[in-house]
Amino acid sequence: MSEDFDGSGGYEKTHVDENYVRVPVERLFSFVKSVLVRLGVPEGDASVVADNLVMADLRGVESHGVQRLKRYVDGILSGGVNVHPDIRKVREGPSYALVDGDEGLGQVVGRFSMELAIEKARKAGIGVVVARNSNHYGIAGYYALMAVEHGMIGISMTNSRPLVAPTGGVERFLGTNPIAVAAPTGGRPFLLDMATSVVPIGKLEVYRRKGQEIPLGWAMDKEGRQTTSVEAVFNGGALLPLGGFGELFGGHKGYGLSVMVDILSGLLGGGTWSRHVKNTSERHSEVDHFFMAVDVEAFVPLDDFRRRMDEMMAELKASKRHPDFERIWVHGEKGFLTMETRRRIGVPIYVGVLEELNGIGEEVGVGRLMELEG
Amino acid sequence: MSEDFDGSGGYEKTHVDENYVRVPVERLFSFVKSVLVRLGVPEGDASVVADNLVMADLRGVESHGVQRLKRYVDGILSGGVNVHPDIRKVREGPSYALVDGDEGLGQVVGRFSMELAIEKARKAGIGVVVARNSNHYGIAGYYALMAVEHGMIGISMTNSRPLVAPTGGVERFLGTNPIAVAAPTGGRPFLLDMATSVVPIGKLEVYRRKGQEIPLGWAMDKEGRQTTSVEAVFNGGALLPLGGFGELFGGHKGYGLSVMVDILSGLLGGGTWSRHVKNTSERHSEVDHFFMAVDVEAFVPLDDFRRRMDEMMAELKASKRHPDFERIWVHGEKGFLTMETRRRIGVPIYVGVLEELNGIGEEVGVGRLMELEG
Repeated sequence: MSEDFDGSGGYEKTHVDENYVRVPVERLFSFVKSVLVRLGVPEGDASVVADNLVMADLRGVESHGVQRLKRYVDGILSGGVNVHPDIRKVREGPSYALVDGDEGLGQVVGRFSMELAIEKARKAGIGVVVARNSNHYGIAGYYALMAVEHGMIGISMTNSRPLVAPTGGVERFLGTNPIAVAAPTGGRPFLLDMATSVVPIGKLEVYRRKGQEIPLGWAMDKEGRQTTSVEAVFNGGALLPLGGFGELFGGHKGYGLSVMVDILSGLLGGGTWSRHVKNTSERHSEVDHFFMAVDVEAFVPLDDFRRRMDEMMAELKASKRHPDFERIWVHGEKGFLTMETRRRIGVPIYVGVLEELNGIGEEVGVGRLMELEG
Repeated sequence: MSEDFDGSGGYEKTHVDENYVRVPVERLFSFVKSVLVRLGVPEGDASVVADNLVMADLRGVESHGVQRLKRYVDGILSGGVNVHPDIRKVREGPSYALVDGDEGLGQVVGRFSMELAIEKARKAGIGVVVARNSNHYGIAGYYALMAVEHGMIGISMTNSRPLVAPTGGVERFLGTNPIAVAAPTGGRPFLLDMATSVVPIGKLEVYRRKGQEIPLGWAMDKEGRQTTSVEAVFNGGALLPLGGFGELFGGHKGYGLSVMVDILSGLLGGGTWSRHVKNTSERHSEVDHFFMAVDVEAFVPLDDFRRRMDEMMAELKASKRHPDFERIWVHGEKGFLTMETRRRIGVPIYVGVLEELNGIGEEVGVGRLMELEG
């Protein structure tokens, strides 16, 4: 949003408030990796998970960043996550595969599956891979961007634990079920990475932490009343699907997109749907994913595609600006700008999360991440 | 919406107000087909277009029904639509193809392309077809449902003329770019068919016709002010993307989904994007489409998939109801109920549209559709 933009060429405000500390990115990565390795995760797999979590923090998606590590650690310790999964192809054709993740870490299953989709797309033009029996896989955009590195369009979706009520209902039956789509350009890739709810649950966690009320229109309490109280939502309420309450502003569309994600990632692969997905930290969560890679060269010359993507994005950004906005963004741009800045000046970590990470480090015996200054 | 539900087992209110007349479905179909045949469209192609337009009216999507015929007729007469297109495959692999529609009727290009996607999915598990140089193709759901008849998941998207402003902008740069997804069940298919704007333009046409104000949050005037005036929107204003104004309720997500449709249907196939799409009635419109079929059997047994789809839909419908709603719907259900009723009792046609159709019938020499009673 425009208020986050520092206007000085970069995107990130260099100032962080007293509740955050900046941690150098390499330090954060090494810490996460070390914790996982100490818990028995093979080094390569630990790198993938660390890369995914740190990328979320770099891009400004705090809710999917290193603050998730605690739940992964709990999942490993409780046995809900298998650190030596036998990830295998159950069925396969030249342009598709069904993968069983054997309850492995979501990022490990996810990377395996997207690499497979890319390999298939390279040979067959299209690669579709559905993965079942996985766990929370972090930001969906991570996998979509993998395809872009190969000159392909990447798509990824995942079901997730129930937090959203269907239109006309009040119960948490749907996941925030994200959809990510990435496409190559001449510069920074196009990257749409969106929850199919009005906001992801992480956004409410930030408001809760700050003790702020949420805008009316994000969520309901357990009786179905729209509420500004974060506690009312956490206390049995539900998030609203994209489009909001009822059908007047298209809430049934967000609801439908969420079900679509359940069909493509869950039911198509013999997995489950969001209502039956569990928290990774509790026991095996039964998360399922969908991955697709489209080799642009199979359709049109890649250079030509990149050029036309650049033209489209330039035209959108140069279109007439609304007086309330400082600029028109294209998708992914903010995240890439934030990432570039944070690689230089470090990743802001909430002090409560830092304490938690320090505790994990001591517990598993890799030492503390960083001390609070002062 | 619940107020449209008659509660008597069917979905459609049997009563139509004085501005509508009911036309038997066979009569409507024959009329549309005859008009097109008289204008030089081959009989098979004319049947496809008539089938698509009448299906929209049967399902309650009036904006994409026979009221579109005028624009198609104008497109044919102005030479913007080619009634004898050489629809050809430009590139092809086992699981994908790029089709050039040669400026044919969108429904004819669409049906050809979706049939090709289904044929490829039958052999390769997945079929993706991108079609360029087409025209307005009617309801996107028509093509998605074609796949369901073959036990497949069907997806279709299309770019469309610019009517929607990007988040932060005020100009019409994006199309209402619909996304349709259909999946087989044990009964009525799941069918999500949605514009990526808060509402499609047809909804505003209905409000305009009735002289009613639109809800605040659907659209902006040409200065970017949110407005309840339909005229202000038609007079240089713009529709808002799904999620509404700004980013607070996810308007950037609807914007992103719209761009995704432009990438997959337009840029991937060497076509254009919504900003440069024209009205079918004016000149060649350069509309592009995306089609995908996924053979469920390639992944899991179809019967099993159907059963689990039924379970999911039953669970959603049986979840706790919000006090403001009479029932919880699943996607497509309302349209199928409406279709079943209208097949019996006829399709409500707005009297202004009936007059227009009668005029077309006289002009091309196939006679009038129906006289107004009384």
